[in-house]
Amino acid sequence: MSAARRWITLTTDFGLDSPYVAQMKAVLARRAPQAAVVDLSHNIGPQDVRQAAILLHDSCFWFPPETVHVAVVDPGVGTERRLLAARLKDQWFVGPDNGVISLWAERDPPELVVVLDRPEYWNRDVSSTFHGRDIMAPVAAHLVNGVSPLELGSPTNTWQRFPWPRPQWHHGFVEAHVLLVDHFGNLLTDLTQAMVAQRRAHLVGGSLPGGQSFRVVRTYGEAPAGTLVGLFGSQGRFEVAVVQGNAAADYQLAAGDVVRVEWHCGDE
Amino acid sequence: MSAARRWITLTTDFGLDSPYVAQMKAVLARRAPQAAVVDLSHNIGPQDVRQAAILLHDSCFWFPPETVHVAVVDPGVGTERRLLAARLKDQWFVGPDNGVISLWAERDPPELVVVLDRPEYWNRDVSSTFHGRDIMAPVAAHLVNGVSPLELGSPTNTWQRFPWPRPQWHHGFVEAHVLLVDHFGNLLTDLTQAMVAQRRAHLVGGSLPGGQSFRVVRTYGEAPAGTLVGLFGSQGRFEVAVVQGNAAADYQLAAGDVVRVEWHCGDE
Amino acid sequence: MSAARRWITLTTDFGLDSPYVAQMKAVLARRAPQAAVVDLSHNIGPQDVRQAAILLHDSCFWFPPETVHVAVVDPGVGTERRLLAARLKDQWFVGPDNGVISLWAERDPPELVVVLDRPEYWNRDVSSTFHGRDIMAPVAAHLVNGVSPLELGSPTNTWQRFPWPRPQWHHGFVEAHVLLVDHFGNLLTDLTQAMVAQRRAHLVGGSLPGGQSFRVVRTYGEAPAGTLVGLFGSQGRFEVAVVQGNAAADYQLAAGDVVRVEWHCGDE
Repeated sequence: MSAARRWITLTTDFGLDSPYVAQMKAVLARRAPQAAVVDLSHNIGPQDVRQAAILLHDSCFWFPPETVHVAVVDPGVGTERRLLAARLKDQWFVGPDNGVISLWAERDPPELVVVLDRPEYWNRDVSSTFHGRDIMAPVAAHLVNGVSPLELGSPTNTWQRFPWPRPQWHHGFVEAHVLLVDHFGNLLTDLTQAMVAQRRAHLVGGSLPGGQSFRVVRTYGEAPAGTLVGLFGSQGRFEVAVVQGNAAADYQLAAGDVVRVEWHCGDE
Repeated sequence: MSAARRWITLTTDFGLDSPYVAQMKAVLARRAPQAAVVDLSHNIGPQDVRQAAILLHDSCFWFPPETVHVAVVDPGVGTERRLLAARLKDQWFVGPDNGVISLWAERDPPELVVVLDRPEYWNRDVSSTFHGRDIMAPVAAHLVNGVSPLELGSPTNTWQRFPWPRPQWHHGFVEAHVLLVDHFGNLLTDLTQAMVAQRRAHLVGGSLPGGQSFRVVRTYGEAPAGTLVGLFGSQGRFEVAVVQGNAAADYQLAAGDVVRVEWHCGDE
Repeated sequence: MSAARRWITLTTDFGLDSPYVAQMKAVLARRAPQAAVVDLSHNIGPQDVRQAAILLHDSCFWFPPETVHVAVVDPGVGTERRLLAARLKDQWFVGPDNGVISLWAERDPPELVVVLDRPEYWNRDVSSTFHGRDIMAPVAAHLVNGVSPLELGSPTNTWQRFPWPRPQWHHGFVEAHVLLVDHFGNLLTDLTQAMVAQRRAHLVGGSLPGGQSFRVVRTYGEAPAGTLVGLFGSQGRFEVAVVQGNAAADYQLAAGDVVRVEWHCGDE
């Protein structure tokens, strides 16, 4: 008799000093009072759509089925850019058509994508600069309340794709791209555990752009504090880290940099 | 049969590194376990009552009716300053009588203001430095639980008012005051959309204190990245922004600075 | 008929820019959908176990009975360090056996401590770097759901203790240690109100390591802005503060520094 609890996550570049996040939560409180709202992150770099795209890709599937993920990193607000709602696997996405869904959609091809074009489901007054509050939050609330996405918009087959980097495999080494620097200064790359498993590759070590070499470990505890290591982290990504230190700060590296990782065939 | 869900918002200058916010939430958890608590902001500048006042004014009305807004920016804690609970339109306020309610109260004159003077409704041990946890959180919980404000305190007709700036209208231009710098470095002023509509004014451009001029747009998307523009933002305020940039940092402007905005009569 | 609401608190050094906190909340959402999750702090200094220990000690008892407090400050993740669940008074702890529980346990000796050694209660795939998500969150959810701790692990009588500093009492003065600097730059020490009451001591003033003297007040309001004062704060700790200023920044003090406090016997 009691309906299952429903979740909404928020990913924005609003920071926590401005009232924008709270205003989105207020709209959700009015329209979907029983939903639970979880902050994915509000510290996305201003207008850094790629960073938000990676966070969504890495985190969405942890949430309960039917969770609605709202992404408001929206440099194009007020232009002709479209707003989308989409179904990916057992989750929902609501956000701008600016590529923020594109990494997630590579793994979980959307079953349905609609363009949000039904103002009767939005706030009555829609500002020209804050569609997160005035369009996306109301639409997320409707999805949580069980409104069909086909009520909320018109189906489309297109959405913006980014040319995401791929690790470049060579004989004996692979070039991985830093996608994200985490809170600890760890460098998360586009080289995933799944890719390595598929090639039955065995990673043995590597080097940074500056030539500093690292060995591959299974966990931080295998090397003393201060050691530069490479390992598969909790996001399923190969990452380079300084044990109990900050690799990004120590070596001045950031998203876009290339890490060289030595490998040999696991069967050898 | 099921009671409507109730909300409490928190606005403080506690930051998120100290345990103070969590202790307020713990008191609310004990006393109003079914209420939903939303952070408005905990990054108010230390003791910056004015900043908190603006955030409350701009955000409160978005929340569901009967929401209780608690503001703990309280440089006078432990002095003779009074604590208030107030009813403004369909919302509640709990906080110190230090002007933090005064901008909101200009728009929504309080129907009832009480001075919190009934210790039987507070924590048993009241610290001399943290009334947010020991008085305001318990009082907010009682309001959410349906206790009458007249049980919680004694009615008063006075509360502290701030001399809030007003835009200065001149022939052909208006001087607006920067009230707030948001997370993106946008400069939010005291010139509201309602004021401009009332005068049937049409804004056409303007200039910063340093002489740099901007044109007025409807949305960020109307100008290329890097352009200085003026527009009505999502808070109903005229704001000056650099498209995909940071106006406050680029031009070294802050709350208190004056922006000149050219206008002509909309009927001309 | 309706079960009481249950709380889980999170204390981590993850920051809010990475998706790690959200992934822990996602696991909790799946496994304990009715629990309320409260952030104690995610801004613990990287690997600063002592800071987390103090926050837990000072905040846990404010929460409702049966709250589960999860602490993920875990420099030893992936090593042989153990993970614990413990019952302290009417609260629960889940976290690594690295001393993070040790200050709390001095006040509230655990009734039961178990070593988490039952993988059937964890996530199916356990990463080697993020046990907060893969072990601690599932275990916290089980506790909230009423699973016995004896199902979740094997009892132990040992856990890591830190040599916490104690105030050094001398004739006429006591040396207190700064444990924590809060968001306002106040210096919180290990000298508690209970210790002072037990000795029937009366504190009258003191000095910083650099020789600057302060007087003891009951509340910030007793001294003008800018004054250096000592007082018992809301955490039950003697703290040194600059009224409406920042003592840590002004005097370059931090955790570990020693403050001298003059006292005489209250009966004199």
